[in-house]
Amino acid sequence: MIFIGERINAGFKDVRAAIVNHDGDVIKEWAVKQTAAKADYLEVAIGTASNKPEDLCWMIEMVQSVCDTPISIDINKPVLLKEAIKICKKPPLVNSTTAIEEKMNEIMPIVAEYNASVIGLVMDEEGSPKTVDKRIESAGKIMAKAMDLGITPDRLFLDPIIMPLKFMQDQHKVVMNAVSQFTLFSDPPCHIVCGLTNASNGAVHKKLINRVLVAMLIAHGLDAVILDVLDEELVNTILTADLIMNRSIYADSYLEAFRK
Amino acid sequence: MIFIGERINAGFKDVRAAIVNHDGDVIKEWAVKQTAAKADYLEVAIGTASNKPEDLCWMIEMVQSVCDTPISIDINKPVLLKEAIKICKKPPLVNSTTAIEEKMNEIMPIVAEYNASVIGLVMDEEGSPKTVDKRIESAGKIMAKAMDLGITPDRLFLDPIIMPLKFMQDQHKVVMNAVSQFTLFSDPPCHIVCGLTNASNGAVHKKLINRVLVAMLIAHGLDAVILDVLDEELVNTILTADLIMNRSIYADSYLEAFRK
Repeated sequence: MIFIGERINAGFKDVRAAIVNHDGDVIKEWAVKQTAAKADYLEVAIGTASNKPEDLCWMIEMVQSVCDTPISIDINKPVLLKEAIKICKKPPLVNSTTAIEEKMNEIMPIVAEYNASVIGLVMDEEGSPKTVDKRIESAGKIMAKAMDLGITPDRLFLDPIIMPLKFMQDQHKVVMNAVSQFTLFSDPPCHIVCGLTNASNGAVHKKLINRVLVAMLIAHGLDAVILDVLDEELVNTILTADLIMNRSIYADSYLEAFRK
Repeated sequence: MIFIGERINAGFKDVRAAIVNHDGDVIKEWAVKQTAAKADYLEVAIGTASNKPEDLCWMIEMVQSVCDTPISIDINKPVLLKEAIKICKKPPLVNSTTAIEEKMNEIMPIVAEYNASVIGLVMDEEGSPKTVDKRIESAGKIMAKAMDLGITPDRLFLDPIIMPLKFMQDQHKVVMNAVSQFTLFSDPPCHIVCGLTNASNGAVHKKLINRVLVAMLIAHGLDAVILDVLDEELVNTILTADLIMNRSIYADSYLEAFRK
């Protein structure tokens, strides 16, 4: 499983304040903590806290000053992306493009140029998809563009678009079916990623819903996740699901071994 | 989800002693507790504690003296089954037949006669199956026999045979694929059931493995489970997976509502 640590995101108040005040310690602390918890990528999301490229670059520099975990740049403005990607010491994961032609043409050539990876949200001009077919149609467009630009499947992360359980309960079976289909697109397959937070939006039993949903998605082929990597129960669930999928070798102390 | 409470089983020391000593209170207490925890069936398994039909009948009578939850008779000896099934007040679930012709001919006509349901283990003369195809072959034989005898799909529970994660790690993906296939066999489909205990046999993190595996199997179509229905975390996982599969209607307090 590829763990993408979600925490350095201006959606969290402490990170937003850190960006506004250029308080590097907050950013560094989350970078160190998530790296210690075995994040494979650290998401860096400036959100609406600033639209200045230098602020995003500062965030990335803060992270890179304390760890060498690759960055996941959460940005959809090409202007910011162009500046940020230059200073990444390792090829980053760009979050994200959609299947909209104009968007792909803005984002994906930059991804290709820097040997980066990219998350492709399987949605187009019509907005959030409702069906398996619509998701497959958008995934196909993104895969075709990736191939055109020489972005190999191992650098493409398809995101099937998770909906809130509370409001769109019928969508989760559809998403699972779409994930199963995505695994058949290419050999070797591309990665399949999701953000869990949206699933439990507005729900009371948020953490439980996140844990159960991620196991069910892994059962269909999900192999990357944007998550709170410090949520030990969530990570334990994912490590167990990986074992069940025969992706890691069983040991009685598999949880303890992961954290060593 | 159909919950089959596993606890009245001579494999547990207290139940074994209760059978030997004809101590009805132990049996009654487990019947009441599991019924309160919303078991749909109560497994009654005499195992090797006795081979007398009257002892099995006594167990069932003890259960039926305190609740009207249907019985799951865990027995593969036709002699015992014939006596036990007569005294069941509601049509029981018979656990189990295999796909072996002789076994099916012993067990399934009794099931048909009493309007009971039956668990079909998808294994034959060659023993535990290793592949999806072998499981489907055995499932097909059991389904065909059920149809011949007028046992409708809603009274047939296919068991894909869960292997211990620790010793046969490659089998769980195979089981998931088999479960997916079973759901396509008939419309309406038959039920798909498993016993969870075997999955975590010999493992250290037993409960975690059981929880994660059941969610992953539900994601592929499992709709019945033999379990410790008093394991609240396990039941919460299953209730959440059912919600995600859109089998029950979302409410913020879905866990609390189930237990009211």
